[in-house]
Amino acid sequence: MHQTLINRRTLGVTFSPEGACVRVWAPFAQSVCLRLHQQQQTIHLQSDGTYWQTSTQQLQPGDTYTFILNDTLDRPDPASLSQPEGVHGPSQAIDTSEFNWTDADWKNLPLDDYLLYELHTGTFTPDGTFAGIESRLDYLIELGINAIEIMPVAQFPGTRNWGYDGVCPYAVQNSYGGAIGLQQLVDACHRKGLAVVLDVVYNHMGPEGNYFADYGPYFTNRYQTPWGHALNFDDDYSDSVRRYFIENVLMWFRDFHIDALRIDAAHAIHDAREVHLLREIKEYVDELIRQMGRQHYLIIESDQNETKFIQALAQQGYGMDAQWNDEFHHALRVTATGEQKGYYADYNGVQHLAKSYKDAYVYDGTYMPRRARIVGKSTAGHAGRQFVVFSQNHDHIGNRMLGERPAQLVSLAMQKLMAGAVMSSPYLPMLFMGEEWGELNPFLYFVSHTDPNLIEAVRQGRRREFAAFQGVAEAPDAQDERTFGKSKLNWELRDQEPHATLFRYYQTLLALRKQSSLRHPDRESVAVVVDETKQTIMLLRQHKQVDWVAT
Amino acid sequence: MHQTLINRRTLGVTFSPEGACVRVWAPFAQSVCLRLHQQQQTIHLQSDGTYWQTSTQQLQPGDTYTFILNDTLDRPDPASLSQPEGVHGPSQAIDTSEFNWTDADWKNLPLDDYLLYELHTGTFTPDGTFAGIESRLDYLIELGINAIEIMPVAQFPGTRNWGYDGVCPYAVQNSYGGAIGLQQLVDACHRKGLAVVLDVVYNHMGPEGNYFADYGPYFTNRYQTPWGHALNFDDDYSDSVRRYFIENVLMWFRDFHIDALRIDAAHAIHDAREVHLLREIKEYVDELIRQMGRQHYLIIESDQNETKFIQALAQQGYGMDAQWNDEFHHALRVTATGEQKGYYADYNGVQHLAKSYKDAYVYDGTYMPRRARIVGKSTAGHAGRQFVVFSQNHDHIGNRMLGERPAQLVSLAMQKLMAGAVMSSPYLPMLFMGEEWGELNPFLYFVSHTDPNLIEAVRQGRRREFAAFQGVAEAPDAQDERTFGKSKLNWELRDQEPHATLFRYYQTLLALRKQSSLRHPDRESVAVVVDETKQTIMLLRQHKQVDWVAT
Repeated sequence: MHQTLINRRTLGVTFSPEGACVRVWAPFAQSVCLRLHQQQQTIHLQSDGTYWQTSTQQLQPGDTYTFILNDTLDRPDPASLSQPEGVHGPSQAIDTSEFNWTDADWKNLPLDDYLLYELHTGTFTPDGTFAGIESRLDYLIELGINAIEIMPVAQFPGTRNWGYDGVCPYAVQNSYGGAIGLQQLVDACHRKGLAVVLDVVYNHMGPEGNYFADYGPYFTNRYQTPWGHALNFDDDYSDSVRRYFIENVLMWFRDFHIDALRIDAAHAIHDAREVHLLREIKEYVDELIRQMGRQHYLIIESDQNETKFIQALAQQGYGMDAQWNDEFHHALRVTATGEQKGYYADYNGVQHLAKSYKDAYVYDGTYMPRRARIVGKSTAGHAGRQFVVFSQNHDHIGNRMLGERPAQLVSLAMQKLMAGAVMSSPYLPMLFMGEEWGELNPFLYFVSHTDPNLIEAVRQGRRREFAAFQGVAEAPDAQDERTFGKSKLNWELRDQEPHATLFRYYQTLLALRKQSSLRHPDRESVAVVVDETKQTIMLLRQHKQVDWVAT
Repeated sequence: MHQTLINRRTLGVTFSPEGACVRVWAPFAQSVCLRLHQQQQTIHLQSDGTYWQTSTQQLQPGDTYTFILNDTLDRPDPASLSQPEGVHGPSQAIDTSEFNWTDADWKNLPLDDYLLYELHTGTFTPDGTFAGIESRLDYLIELGINAIEIMPVAQFPGTRNWGYDGVCPYAVQNSYGGAIGLQQLVDACHRKGLAVVLDVVYNHMGPEGNYFADYGPYFTNRYQTPWGHALNFDDDYSDSVRRYFIENVLMWFRDFHIDALRIDAAHAIHDAREVHLLREIKEYVDELIRQMGRQHYLIIESDQNETKFIQALAQQGYGMDAQWNDEFHHALRVTATGEQKGYYADYNGVQHLAKSYKDAYVYDGTYMPRRARIVGKSTAGHAGRQFVVFSQNHDHIGNRMLGERPAQLVSLAMQKLMAGAVMSSPYLPMLFMGEEWGELNPFLYFVSHTDPNLIEAVRQGRRREFAAFQGVAEAPDAQDERTFGKSKLNWELRDQEPHATLFRYYQTLLALRKQSSLRHPDRESVAVVVDETKQTIMLLRQHKQVDWVAT
């Protein structure tokens, strides 16, 4: 373990009383220069193995800069913290230590207590910024959740994107409010008793503004992801790529006070090395926790139902604290709607929902027809807090052609039942923004690329994906600003009936969750009775008696 | 674990008193027919999930057949045991139980005692067949080895190939003598006290004659190997692909009495499922051993220095019995020749050789410059018998443009030193055919494809690979029959000096290995003293005193 990594970033620009320290990985470069845009000056970096570095008094926080590779390519910093002019523009130096934190009293919540609320910064509020989120924190507290989960904020092309096309894992989207805006939001959350979970993407990087190949072998041809080249975590030169992402994890926790990361599509982080990247990340995070005395969690998204991800380090697992459990969603959704298209085809409704209440995974060593293979492993021995459940999220809404939320598809009574099903589960519940008042605007897939070829490729890809719907309806144009506009929450709806009633129902449910035995995600005590004729489930939850023993 | 898999093949054609049972996996087929070539008859197979099957009295051992998919494609059986007309021709039914084994008294050697001899069937003897090998078994016994390791014999295009372009993993190359020829060779080896190791390829299949995609998703786009599409061991439908290779392993052990498999390039068997294919194979092999009462070993080739492969199942490893240790070779080779090109660049000679004597891997958690990353893990706790070492093998000779053997490159004295270095190691020694008399013919890369595009691709690939040598010499044409011819052993050389002397030296070394403490591959007792000035190593080996304790 590199001790230096724990205390501070080593990549990109960092500041100390002696000035700016600049460091970039470019193993094949013949020369690397730092170009200071305000000063109209270039400084040669010194080679240090496969890294290049310099120290300078010239570069000050707020200044913009680029790197010039081999005297020809003028490129943003791969570890840029700010891209004030977007992904193609220069990087901006940021001193993350300048922020005056006021959250010294904040203590991360026990994972058991997390009540999550997933939101997308750009569409959560009319102005689509971190400041916008901050203005709604009192509302979220009134609702009763205690943790917000922010969809990815790494700089992406343009101003409209779910966040999974990010190309600057260290830079906070400028149109959201940038790095300082995020620090301010986290600080405000902590003052109000809310934890902050950040969604990060470590399995691929977006296509536009992706200058990584100019710097080094960040990608490998050994693997493919559905979204493009896989990151190079196990091929030649992979140590430095691993280090790049490990430093990224540590930065969010240490310099942004993020409480937990939600790691996107962990099953697509291909790594055949003896120590998997996720395991190595966990080792570093444990050391950070030890040194800093603050708790942080690692939560993954995975579609593999393989417990190696959430197995403890001591049991040779990757040590992730928790994972999203999509199968609970699928089983619940099929129970509620009878839907059988696409990935819902493998779920039969109440029987599978009952199984998910008991065993978390529906497929846990059993044959899954759509994959035509045995999927999953038993979750025996894994605590309820290791599974995040929901009746909707950005994916299961937004991957529908018309992006309909459940409120557009099912009755109010069914919305209430679905909310109750989630909140009474022995797992960590998560809401998706707006579900608490039955938002009727869709959550569509949207982008704002500038590369015309890419825009056309996205359009065609969406059309292909939804070819079966042709004739019924047209796939909305992801590039069209109106598609983004339509996906914004309509806050006025919340005060209208029946939405106001639904909101109070969610408030009551959340209060019940917190004040009853439900708040303990104990899997041992769960009993489920299925009535197949009536298609109903009776769920029994209790919490073990706590006996105080004088010691 | 499918119990049925242990006792008999379920795929392809098997015979019982009731007739032939025919079974093939074709999950997307609308219909599958068995076409009997002699009988000029077709029989419809019945669908059984993703498999198709029938039983028939029509098909007799020796008959040829194909499968007709969707009434259009006429294809050989993916689990064919015999391809009498080559990879593009019909399959031939073989009843492996018809062979009259005479090796009931044979007991596999303890792995500790293995003294291996790698050979290529086509070039080992003038006629290039299993019968040819059989005619030299007395010679091999006279030499003093006790196990032959046969390069892959799965049917490949044409008659000349190293074996790594095989496309019928169940069919034994017809020009070598086919399935019955292999059974006869193994039986003869066992009668003479020789074990048989078979090289098998489970990471890819060759390009020509590869009809697998017509049957089902045998391949995945998720991964790439340097040799083509990766086999589908973890994607949708992968259970059946895994089963196909598990049955293959069991067949070699059970029906061909093979003593050990050498699994090619195990690091390229990409499998992210919780139970890695190799681990699942080991579980089945353990069950086979338990039921059949015969010992079998699994030996892998791997370039990753990761002990998870050879870690016991109980320690969450893949349970492989042993692995090739290329790094011992590289360190020895650099010590002997000072070579520094290509993969030799990472090895410094005596220091690394000393490290390999002590620690097996040279890089065991240390930075490898050519890969620009930390490579490997400590082998502490792993027995010497888990590492196969050699001063040459088919790869390190044949991947040179001119295929020169060490005898063409180093002095007789150095050849002797290299042999001694291998034989005195605390690992399992392996010779490559002909090294024992200092063969002077090269071992070149050769193929006999029939697809003109493929032939041209191979030619251009070889030229590219050796572009740096252009001007110095021309890369031999792999497709040219003379390239194959030149690679055959020249047995007459063995009776000439200094070759006859070298042969006696190898005899003496092998005898010494067997009769001294050297025969125990104990790593604990190894002491190595390096003299950097003289560039020499002193190796001390001893075997622990065995104390008999009355209990």
